[in-house]
Amino acid sequence: MSTEDSPSEETARPSLSRRGLFGLAAGVGAAGLALGAGAGSAIGVAVGRERAEQEGAASVHPFFGTHQAGITTPMQDHLHFAAFDMMAGSSRDDLQSLLKDWSYAAARMTQGLDVSASGAVGGSPEAPPDDTGEALGLPASGLTITFGLGSTLFSTDSGDDRYGLARLRPAGLAKLPAFLGDDLDPSVSGGDLCIQACADDPQVAVHAIRNLSRIAFGRARLRWSQLGFGKTSKTTAAQATPRNLFGFKDGTANILADDTKALADHVWVAEDDAPAWLAGGSYLVARKVAMLIETWDRVRLSEQQRIIGRDKAQGAPLSGGVETTAPDFGTTDAAGAPAIDRASHVRLAHPDLNNGIRILRRGYNYVDGNTDLGRLDAGLFFLSYQRSPDQFVTLQRALSTDLMNEYVRHIASGIWAVPRGAGDGSYVGAELFA
Amino acid sequence: MSTEDSPSEETARPSLSRRGLFGLAAGVGAAGLALGAGAGSAIGVAVGRERAEQEGAASVHPFFGTHQAGITTPMQDHLHFAAFDMMAGSSRDDLQSLLKDWSYAAARMTQGLDVSASGAVGGSPEAPPDDTGEALGLPASGLTITFGLGSTLFSTDSGDDRYGLARLRPAGLAKLPAFLGDDLDPSVSGGDLCIQACADDPQVAVHAIRNLSRIAFGRARLRWSQLGFGKTSKTTAAQATPRNLFGFKDGTANILADDTKALADHVWVAEDDAPAWLAGGSYLVARKVAMLIETWDRVRLSEQQRIIGRDKAQGAPLSGGVETTAPDFGTTDAAGAPAIDRASHVRLAHPDLNNGIRILRRGYNYVDGNTDLGRLDAGLFFLSYQRSPDQFVTLQRALSTDLMNEYVRHIASGIWAVPRGAGDGSYVGAELFA
Repeated sequence: MSTEDSPSEETARPSLSRRGLFGLAAGVGAAGLALGAGAGSAIGVAVGRERAEQEGAASVHPFFGTHQAGITTPMQDHLHFAAFDMMAGSSRDDLQSLLKDWSYAAARMTQGLDVSASGAVGGSPEAPPDDTGEALGLPASGLTITFGLGSTLFSTDSGDDRYGLARLRPAGLAKLPAFLGDDLDPSVSGGDLCIQACADDPQVAVHAIRNLSRIAFGRARLRWSQLGFGKTSKTTAAQATPRNLFGFKDGTANILADDTKALADHVWVAEDDAPAWLAGGSYLVARKVAMLIETWDRVRLSEQQRIIGRDKAQGAPLSGGVETTAPDFGTTDAAGAPAIDRASHVRLAHPDLNNGIRILRRGYNYVDGNTDLGRLDAGLFFLSYQRSPDQFVTLQRALSTDLMNEYVRHIASGIWAVPRGAGDGSYVGAELFA
Repeated sequence: MSTEDSPSEETARPSLSRRGLFGLAAGVGAAGLALGAGAGSAIGVAVGRERAEQEGAASVHPFFGTHQAGITTPMQDHLHFAAFDMMAGSSRDDLQSLLKDWSYAAARMTQGLDVSASGAVGGSPEAPPDDTGEALGLPASGLTITFGLGSTLFSTDSGDDRYGLARLRPAGLAKLPAFLGDDLDPSVSGGDLCIQACADDPQVAVHAIRNLSRIAFGRARLRWSQLGFGKTSKTTAAQATPRNLFGFKDGTANILADDTKALADHVWVAEDDAPAWLAGGSYLVARKVAMLIETWDRVRLSEQQRIIGRDKAQGAPLSGGVETTAPDFGTTDAAGAPAIDRASHVRLAHPDLNNGIRILRRGYNYVDGNTDLGRLDAGLFFLSYQRSPDQFVTLQRALSTDLMNEYVRHIASGIWAVPRGAGDGSYVGAELFA
């Protein structure tokens, strides 16, 4: 990851509609049209550049590229995820300009720059700043911003082709079917658009979502959002496997960022897959999974391990070996019973029992304070990327008899098509308007 | 900060009631009494010790000492704050054993150890583990755990001396008076006890609150809790001043950790102050201050700066100079008006206008998702330490005409007496039972 790949002012500006961004600024503030020119903007850029230069190259990820960043990027420490709905009455132009403005701002923020050239302090003192300022002085912090498109963007539930995109709708992009144990809250599910912002500093991730929400003003509105921390999935070989809030290592058998073959087979939509515009993209599933942790914490260790199918200390499968040993579902214990319970999580989710299906998981732990009963309101914000929604549906159905179900509740859900990465100076989703 | 100060098994065990902790474990799990002896516990300790040794000395803070850690400790990146209520019918012994068990667990966890010797995986497989496990393998991450005692612990609102502590109640420890603009939610205010857990890894802070909640089982119950990030107060000279969610530097004039004179004058309860048992302690005020950030973001830069009284880029007072320049409230602009508005935040909160009163601030930013209106549910979780509650009350009253009030709502509030630090092998609050 070299900062050479950063969007220079030269590459990012010509193709992107800066007018869109500043048109918005005019809507937000009284004197927005005064922004973007003159001495003020030079200051904003200078401040931003100083920030980016403080940064080690490793924690600045390019925005432009074949695939969107934030999918195979090594998991950062913090997540701010947000779903948006387009405003009633918004036009195709509104959607296109929003996607352009979001990409322009994301290209800047991921490089440690302010959201626009005039930034947090470089505009006219008589106008609201373009950038909200709380990330001023902070490095890029590994920020990635990943955009997704919901099924309702292509046509509403009542079949309305609001933006002339119905013919481009991926056949598999539809509300997920109901699963056993679903207890979904519609107000924190779905959404016309989604943004996954990941960074090693939560203030940087929050700054990104806040400023992208602000840019959406008049075109789209924040529907729901979720903060997460701590990672729950191993995504690179170098990384120690993190632990989820059940105290177990999670993601031991995840698809790793350098496994090109597995990514091609299981994560990236191929040229031959339909629709063609989504080639190089993926499908993102988000599930908010509340954990009944006080109940779990009273389960004896042997039973916790039976439910997961791995030992708690090292994460080794109960059939023996070490964390990285493949589970052997044929191994039996002294009494002749399977060493790995047939209803354990590791077995039911295993590719060998699911026609080789794998997904790339990228979830985070969450704690949203506590319930009225004095229990922590906590769990897993599950995120997975897959080449087809069918992969998730098949695996989730296989988990219907999972022993773990007694200790979790799925309370939010969404699925989005994630377009390929933006070409230099272009924007995410440009294929929809070609 | 040397790990030499860590509680060894030898120093921590004799005085602390391990029976209390394991008595609790028995209440929680079926076979808790089997814990704490045998081969299992050795494993737990070994795992914990390995963790602590991975750590640089700088990010391990001693638990035992003159003052509790987490007050002058350089601010860590993350906060999990929790308030507890004692269970109805709980006894003086319950309270004392809880404080002992909490200190024992806190002394271990702050050193990067599991909550008990048998820990997350070292107990009997036929019992629930003592430790919930999600911090297994993580370093201490600068964890500090700070305990506070609410006024209702000394006597309830109806005057009930539940624990025989009424005569020890600090005269100043009472529910804070109502302030202009208060919009408090009682369900997230107050509490018989509070715990401030700060760490550089949110998973470590959450692990601490979760395990201390678990230890409280049957004696106290989680009343409310709050996660925070990003710091909003400068607490050491070396630290760059962080920014709050208004995008301004915050805490420029805060009391620094090495300013012994200011700490003695403004933060630590002195030997001559009443009550004697609180000498070396402090008073903690927590206020959840919701920020109307979308409204703020539409305010022009010059007005934002007028409200704060400082410039946004550098944090210099509007009377001139750099961030560290003292504000000069006599400076006027070309039109003869005060350069720093009389109702600006910096002026109204300044010691010169408040009889020299200062407080040690230690707040964090928070984002709790969003409101039904699609606005970020975000703001400042204000924490301050002071020698007397009067300091906070005086300053908060002075802020009643603060221009900033239009953009904030105080939605939660609490005050607690924070005892001195525990002596080696003793526990926080021991003075109450002497």
